[in-house]
Amino acid sequence: MIQVLLVHDGCLVRSVLAQWLSREPDLQVDDVPWRRAPCHMRALRPDVCAADLDCSDTAGIPPLGELGLRGGDQALPRLLVLATANRPGLLRRALEAGALGYVDKTGTPEQLLRGIRKVAKGERFVSESLGFGFLKAAEMPLTRRELSVLTLAAEGASFAEIAGSLHLSHGTVRNYMAAITRKTGARNRIDAIRISQGQGWL
Amino acid sequence: MIQVLLVHDGCLVRSVLAQWLSREPDLQVDDVPWRRAPCHMRALRPDVCAADLDCSDTAGIPPLGELGLRGGDQALPRLLVLATANRPGLLRRALEAGALGYVDKTGTPEQLLRGIRKVAKGERFVSESLGFGFLKAAEMPLTRRELSVLTLAAEGASFAEIAGSLHLSHGTVRNYMAAITRKTGARNRIDAIRISQGQGWL
Repeated sequence: MIQVLLVHDGCLVRSVLAQWLSREPDLQVDDVPWRRAPCHMRALRPDVCAADLDCSDTAGIPPLGELGLRGGDQALPRLLVLATANRPGLLRRALEAGALGYVDKTGTPEQLLRGIRKVAKGERFVSESLGFGFLKAAEMPLTRRELSVLTLAAEGASFAEIAGSLHLSHGTVRNYMAAITRKTGARNRIDAIRISQGQGWL
Repeated sequence: MIQVLLVHDGCLVRSVLAQWLSREPDLQVDDVPWRRAPCHMRALRPDVCAADLDCSDTAGIPPLGELGLRGGDQALPRLLVLATANRPGLLRRALEAGALGYVDKTGTPEQLLRGIRKVAKGERFVSESLGFGFLKAAEMPLTRRELSVLTLAAEGASFAEIAGSLHLSHGTVRNYMAAITRKTGARNRIDAIRISQGQGWL
């Protein structure tokens, strides 16, 4: 029996997906929204955590780091993510969090079953159609520092506020923003934010 | 028998939802992504179109106007939307498109069944939990012209480009942007875009 914790922020879809998975004789499924996922991971210790990378909190970035997957413990739950190729930033975060499975949400539901069974055995599963997304994830153009600057700008912070938060000079923030705009191929700051959010970098 | 056309951009979730709906003896379900919805509405003429308001195209605004729901024909399909209270801009678009049903995606799946059956009879269905979203939809602070300006700005257009597109002077665009920033309670232009996108106005 494979214990699955399904993480998805839309209750309606999550319930239907959980019912659908539960019809499989070898799966036992619990389901939670993202905000309750870290706590349930600790309490349930499922074999597989199947998590949708779309998160409904304001920033839209799922708290993968809080799932408690790091720590060298062999018996830790294994992570499978539901993703799309057009948000490589989220794929990259899932890779960094150590996810074993990557199921394309634009593919068939049967892939999810195959993915869960593979990942439960400790094997990698990647939907073929996510290939281009991984390619783009590897080509992420911005440095961590540039991402920090852009994240604050996207939240509506002024140059002065960004400089204050990151202990930089006003001129340095301006230079970072110019580099970000150039590297993302954007026309201006707003365009750079739009492009980066679209890709899931922010 | 109620003919349902399910519109949702994620194939995996759409397939599972369609299978789940098809278990009901009184529902016959077809399913398509948004880009194919207008064509299928014309070809199938379903009783109910049950459409997820999240659309995966770049702008994220579903093409509700292209579903062919307007035209005074009594036999037109009826629209039910899957929505959330935190994007009042999308609720407002659904209202303007003449949707009869509004099902909260953060609620139970049984609501979707009740909603489809109500709407098939030509009756209104609204999830109670969407009430606050409708209140906010009614309080939309921006005029159509302000929205046009902000939409172009969000796409990365400069003031000069916005002025050119909308046949306005540079100063008028600047005045619109100042009004938008004030009315949305934003700190600056980027913040106004962030707030408006979060609410689903853009």
